[in-house]
Amino acid sequence: MTNPLPTGATIGILGGGQLGRMLSVAAARLGLHTHVYEPASNPPAADVAHAVTTAPYDDVAALTAFARSVDLVTYEFENIPTEALDIIEAITPIHPNRRALGTSQDRLVEKAFLQDIGLTVAPFADITDAASLDAALTTIGTPAILKTRRFGYDGKGQARLKSPQDAATALADMAGAPAVLEGFVTFTSEISIIAARNPQGEVACYDPGENIHRDGILHTTTVPANIPASLRMDAVLLAGKILNMLDYVGVMGVELFVTPKGLIVNEIAPRVHNSGHWTQNGCAVDQFEQHIRAIAGWPLGDGSRHSDVVMENLIGDDMDKVPTLAREQNCAIHLYGKVETKAGRKMGHVNRIKT
Amino acid sequence: MTNPLPTGATIGILGGGQLGRMLSVAAARLGLHTHVYEPASNPPAADVAHAVTTAPYDDVAALTAFARSVDLVTYEFENIPTEALDIIEAITPIHPNRRALGTSQDRLVEKAFLQDIGLTVAPFADITDAASLDAALTTIGTPAILKTRRFGYDGKGQARLKSPQDAATALADMAGAPAVLEGFVTFTSEISIIAARNPQGEVACYDPGENIHRDGILHTTTVPANIPASLRMDAVLLAGKILNMLDYVGVMGVELFVTPKGLIVNEIAPRVHNSGHWTQNGCAVDQFEQHIRAIAGWPLGDGSRHSDVVMENLIGDDMDKVPTLAREQNCAIHLYGKVETKAGRKMGHVNRIKT
Repeated sequence: MTNPLPTGATIGILGGGQLGRMLSVAAARLGLHTHVYEPASNPPAADVAHAVTTAPYDDVAALTAFARSVDLVTYEFENIPTEALDIIEAITPIHPNRRALGTSQDRLVEKAFLQDIGLTVAPFADITDAASLDAALTTIGTPAILKTRRFGYDGKGQARLKSPQDAATALADMAGAPAVLEGFVTFTSEISIIAARNPQGEVACYDPGENIHRDGILHTTTVPANIPASLRMDAVLLAGKILNMLDYVGVMGVELFVTPKGLIVNEIAPRVHNSGHWTQNGCAVDQFEQHIRAIAGWPLGDGSRHSDVVMENLIGDDMDKVPTLAREQNCAIHLYGKVETKAGRKMGHVNRIKT
Repeated sequence: MTNPLPTGATIGILGGGQLGRMLSVAAARLGLHTHVYEPASNPPAADVAHAVTTAPYDDVAALTAFARSVDLVTYEFENIPTEALDIIEAITPIHPNRRALGTSQDRLVEKAFLQDIGLTVAPFADITDAASLDAALTTIGTPAILKTRRFGYDGKGQARLKSPQDAATALADMAGAPAVLEGFVTFTSEISIIAARNPQGEVACYDPGENIHRDGILHTTTVPANIPASLRMDAVLLAGKILNMLDYVGVMGVELFVTPKGLIVNEIAPRVHNSGHWTQNGCAVDQFEQHIRAIAGWPLGDGSRHSDVVMENLIGDDMDKVPTLAREQNCAIHLYGKVETKAGRKMGHVNRIKT
């Protein structure tokens, strides 16, 4: 058991996007410094970080110097090369741990883990070639979704199969990457729960939020979700189970399908999560500070919510709406400082506070 | 009339303390950069600023380069040398304007201005020597307070006179500085109102907060203040009058005494104000973002409050309470990242959200 990080200590963050940016602000609020490691120049997190290293993930010298300059390392995205993590972990701790990261990096490993600990997931099968896909389609049926095992996000690396005739096209979409076939789940809504665990074993959850996606990208999260109290409790319990089984330290986002038979786990993200941005304006301790508290060994915020919130992402040209949003009552604007607006790019979000 | 500052523009901030720090975070949230100018090394604002210049206020080259690197300049404290402002203003606009700054820098000018626009202030007199002090004590009476005209804050540069016998000691405390004698005001409570005005002339006020001081330093601000609605409206109207008369752009803190005869203006601060920190957890747009919006020519937040809040400053050894505060429900912690804890030093604050 490590002692809590004292104020003035430095947290290394792999990845300089909006999540790293908001983590940096939260760390500063607790008197902690951040050092952001990011291959791209002028990343969003650089504006609010104490230090920035601009170097690729295969730069051994830069990774070594980075790891030596910080008290511990965390990350804002899952797809960090294993070799980079090995170099860092030889020098300083990484939170959340490698097992959690490895589990979430691979859809097959993730689903097997979730099933092993007794949770419900969509029917799935390991797909390595046309033969295994044909076999899986026989047991799982269509509609189904073929997904690459690794490096997927925001709907990328996915192909829908309406019928077995789509098999060849879908497999071609994977471009030879190992894949998973997932059975189609009929759900009434999608929710997610943001949970945290610290090294002392304390677990805290925020109220589940209800998510609406557009074009495979999160559009809105509404809190509280329109679900019965029993399902809310189920979500808390299953999130706690995942965190405890992984000996997890940090914040995790758990995406869930609400079905007539109960909750089905869609996926887990070992980091702060877009569907938890509402906590910035709904809670005294938001998910970013909660993550920093957890990895720093501080007491966790208890997750209590003082206000209902609807979070809406600002994607691409949604930036044109900012002047109007700035005039809206009880609407908190959070922009990421990205230089270039691109279609499908997350540029910011707003939290509408319901009073 | 200038156009609103676009995202990606840079705001220069004179002063790198906690106010500059929280202004930087707010600017980042709107996609704006900050460049902090501060003589001391490792100032609190440096952790979250895009750029920092470490140089004294008489460094012409540094001031010039700073002014050229930004789109406009603001400040987090009043006592900026006039020469530094002259150098900057020849290159780029300063908000709030020089008149507002000059008025608030000098207690005599400030009181005369407030009286001129029809507001009530404590009885006051210009004190230049023992003779003028004796004369003023005759008209104003005791108890009274002698204050330096310039460079006073948090109770510094002040001497209380219980009787005319204290005159010589009090005058000696001024160390030859020009001073003002203020009559003692019998008040039931102290409140403050945080108001903002943008270049378009929009004015917005937050609800007045009720302030408790300890040892001359703000201890707590409670919102809403325990005052009748009529006084709340009086506070809003007088704040609006001050801002309009000064053609003010930015956030101003106005400290008021509540007396049986109505509100008496104690002092004005042409900047974000400690008694407005509660807005961070009570409003969608806090005072720091409001200031940035105002000086950037953006629409103002309307000042509406979604939660009641009690703000408490963490002074000196109050930092020892942080581990306990971190366990408190609905308690938002804001630390300033100051390296050294000193008696009387503002190290952070907490906002307790009332649900």
